[in-house]
Amino acid sequence: MNTQPDPRTKAAVKAADRAHVFHSWSAQGLIDPLAVAGAEGSYFWDYDGNRYLDFSSQLVNTNIGHQHPKVVAAVREQAAKLCTIAPGFAVDVRAEAARLIAGRTPGDLDKIFFTNGGAEAVENAVRMARLHTGRPKVLSTYRSYHGATAAAINLTGDPRRWPSDTASAGVVHFWGPFLYRSPFHAETEEQECARALRHLEDTLAFEGPGTVAAIILETVPGTAGIMVPPAGYLAGVREICDRHGIVFVLDEVMAGFGRTGRWFAADHWDVTPDLLTFAKGVNSGYVPLGGVAISAEIAATFDERPYPGGLTYSGHPLACASAVATIEAMAEEGIVENAARIGEDVLGPGLRELAERHPSVGEVRGLGVFWAVELVRDRATREPLVPYNASGEANAPMAAFTAACKKSGLWPFVNMNRTHVVPPCTVSEDEARQGLALLDEALTAADAHTV
Amino acid sequence: MNTQPDPRTKAAVKAADRAHVFHSWSAQGLIDPLAVAGAEGSYFWDYDGNRYLDFSSQLVNTNIGHQHPKVVAAVREQAAKLCTIAPGFAVDVRAEAARLIAGRTPGDLDKIFFTNGGAEAVENAVRMARLHTGRPKVLSTYRSYHGATAAAINLTGDPRRWPSDTASAGVVHFWGPFLYRSPFHAETEEQECARALRHLEDTLAFEGPGTVAAIILETVPGTAGIMVPPAGYLAGVREICDRHGIVFVLDEVMAGFGRTGRWFAADHWDVTPDLLTFAKGVNSGYVPLGGVAISAEIAATFDERPYPGGLTYSGHPLACASAVATIEAMAEEGIVENAARIGEDVLGPGLRELAERHPSVGEVRGLGVFWAVELVRDRATREPLVPYNASGEANAPMAAFTAACKKSGLWPFVNMNRTHVVPPCTVSEDEARQGLALLDEALTAADAHTV
Repeated sequence: MNTQPDPRTKAAVKAADRAHVFHSWSAQGLIDPLAVAGAEGSYFWDYDGNRYLDFSSQLVNTNIGHQHPKVVAAVREQAAKLCTIAPGFAVDVRAEAARLIAGRTPGDLDKIFFTNGGAEAVENAVRMARLHTGRPKVLSTYRSYHGATAAAINLTGDPRRWPSDTASAGVVHFWGPFLYRSPFHAETEEQECARALRHLEDTLAFEGPGTVAAIILETVPGTAGIMVPPAGYLAGVREICDRHGIVFVLDEVMAGFGRTGRWFAADHWDVTPDLLTFAKGVNSGYVPLGGVAISAEIAATFDERPYPGGLTYSGHPLACASAVATIEAMAEEGIVENAARIGEDVLGPGLRELAERHPSVGEVRGLGVFWAVELVRDRATREPLVPYNASGEANAPMAAFTAACKKSGLWPFVNMNRTHVVPPCTVSEDEARQGLALLDEALTAADAHTV
Repeated sequence: MNTQPDPRTKAAVKAADRAHVFHSWSAQGLIDPLAVAGAEGSYFWDYDGNRYLDFSSQLVNTNIGHQHPKVVAAVREQAAKLCTIAPGFAVDVRAEAARLIAGRTPGDLDKIFFTNGGAEAVENAVRMARLHTGRPKVLSTYRSYHGATAAAINLTGDPRRWPSDTASAGVVHFWGPFLYRSPFHAETEEQECARALRHLEDTLAFEGPGTVAAIILETVPGTAGIMVPPAGYLAGVREICDRHGIVFVLDEVMAGFGRTGRWFAADHWDVTPDLLTFAKGVNSGYVPLGGVAISAEIAATFDERPYPGGLTYSGHPLACASAVATIEAMAEEGIVENAARIGEDVLGPGLRELAERHPSVGEVRGLGVFWAVELVRDRATREPLVPYNASGEANAPMAAFTAACKKSGLWPFVNMNRTHVVPPCTVSEDEARQGLALLDEALTAADAHTV
């Protein structure tokens, strides 16, 4: 499995890629994709002998690391047994995956609707909420990402929405709490929490609470900046939803399954949503899988009335088998606890120490293996190192930082003026410390662009 | 792999399924899913020793049959090597799958954007068409199915759209050709073709051709009734699209990869669309996979302008490895040719013979291993055996037919007043004849409901 890659194949792979693969979120003529030859644990490598410490977990999905032997074995075993079967049947691994997930989701979220990924999970959560309430609108936040299918991209609160925006999608965006760049001019977490809840109440009052089917939040917003919500915020939203008969959806596609050092991020605040969407960490993306965990009350809406949604690969056996093995391995090996410990003992203290020494670091924030480093031109004004949605020359400072990381052997996750420190939940203390050391060097490239 | 299932596990599987699995398109309290223990080739079986001849190919996706040894081996090998990697990288199996698909798609559809399934393929095709043209509307037909995410379900022309309908989705539905129930009162194929094209021209004239980004058609509409288009229809739509600068999208999610006895259904009429969506047969659903094949002109739109769409599992290595093995096995073993031959020599003649003897059969139509049997109360008036979108008591005649099939060991595909004869492309002549014999018995149950 770890055979030395043949460098002759690199050229063939790159040529076929450039001729035939159309890449996500990219200008096809301006990219030069790295050819990856293999991966294991917290590392992947190319055909030229370069190894990268994966501080991105790919797209923040390989929570269990690359090629975990128990999950690989489960995929191989299930492939030999039964690769696919239609969603209408009862199947051992599908039922077991649902049972294991339902056993970990908060409260009475005991029914699992499986999809192929996060976007479809959000699509179906929105459908369930609209049909359950009979109301049209859904509220989501700016600074959010919910997926790229039509309903999901309209809910998204980042520039990836703009080219696909449908003014008529029935979505209203509001502002969530984010003390470092407070939309409410707050000075403390308590103030930010109170003002964010007041803002949501005001927005609802003017939209008409009786027209709102759902409020959807990432429990901890991910790609948009890992803004850990202040204590009381999620409980406050829960209370507002209850008061107005609004379905509360927590999107845990990125934050779920160990990323924050708990099985679900909602566990940090003891909040139970009505619907919870998941993907990524449920099986680390070894096979495409996502889903919605559904409360008893919403599930009952579709006891005698058919649920009008579905997909050919709902509850795919291979995907479910990898979820079963992933959840069991995470439990057996204490992987969620490892993520919590690495966050508390290594990443948190280490990043705060970097922030003290590097003038380009405006703030670090996070939980578990889910940290954002906010890079700024000026710590006093908090001016971002690059403007919002910058590209080309305007983005040069972040491009230089990214290049410095890669050159040193650290593969970073970068979005706007931030780098996210999001290694696998299985990352060792040594690997985490090594990554911090490489980040330390790369931040010098960012420091050069401060005022 | 074919070990005897343990009947004791059946109860556990069913109990966990009922407690935790929320099923597609179903009233959760009214279903009793069959527990499937295994599958191979054209058969699957339950825990009680019942074997079913799979005349549904599950949801018309297992074109290569269940557990094809070469595809299973490829999944197992890739699982050991590299299960997942982010879409931004170049990877051997991703590039090779794209190359093999591009080598079979019509014309210059040489760039492949991978998704997890058909709905996401349609979502992205629509996004590409809108951004390429700068126009808002998309035209699709009644009697169609394009998937269940927001854009895809709005394009769909069957009752599954109704609960998720967004009047503002920018979709206009028109009527496609269907001589047996002609929307245009035509009496010949030629007349139906000419009138259907005129209807499309008229609709475009009144919608404003300059407002229309795309026309999307299933090359042969699938779940809606396998209406093989008359000669000249698709070429006519191609010409209309060219004249008005409209993107022509062919949805080959169900019809592609051998189902009609050609690699793509479009090959029957030598028509090249601008975008072609695929899923299902590309890897028989062994791992969730779909995609869009993109013309050179549309791909060039995103050479320097970033394509604003993507997903975590785009070009998933495990899915791509199974596509490579599927396409290679289909080529090596003449599976597409087998589908064509079974259609011409066995299913076509056999179904026509059944139609002569059973008063409940109004029409049979199809190509390859893609056939519809239209069941009617009255052959003269063509009144369907059950009303459109019937349920409960009104659907009893179709329920009786379905039950008769299952009891005999034939697993049918049933939609509205039709059964679709859609076995794997690998089905043998003996299996096809056996299926026809079982269908013959079951049609007696339908005959009892004719006038």
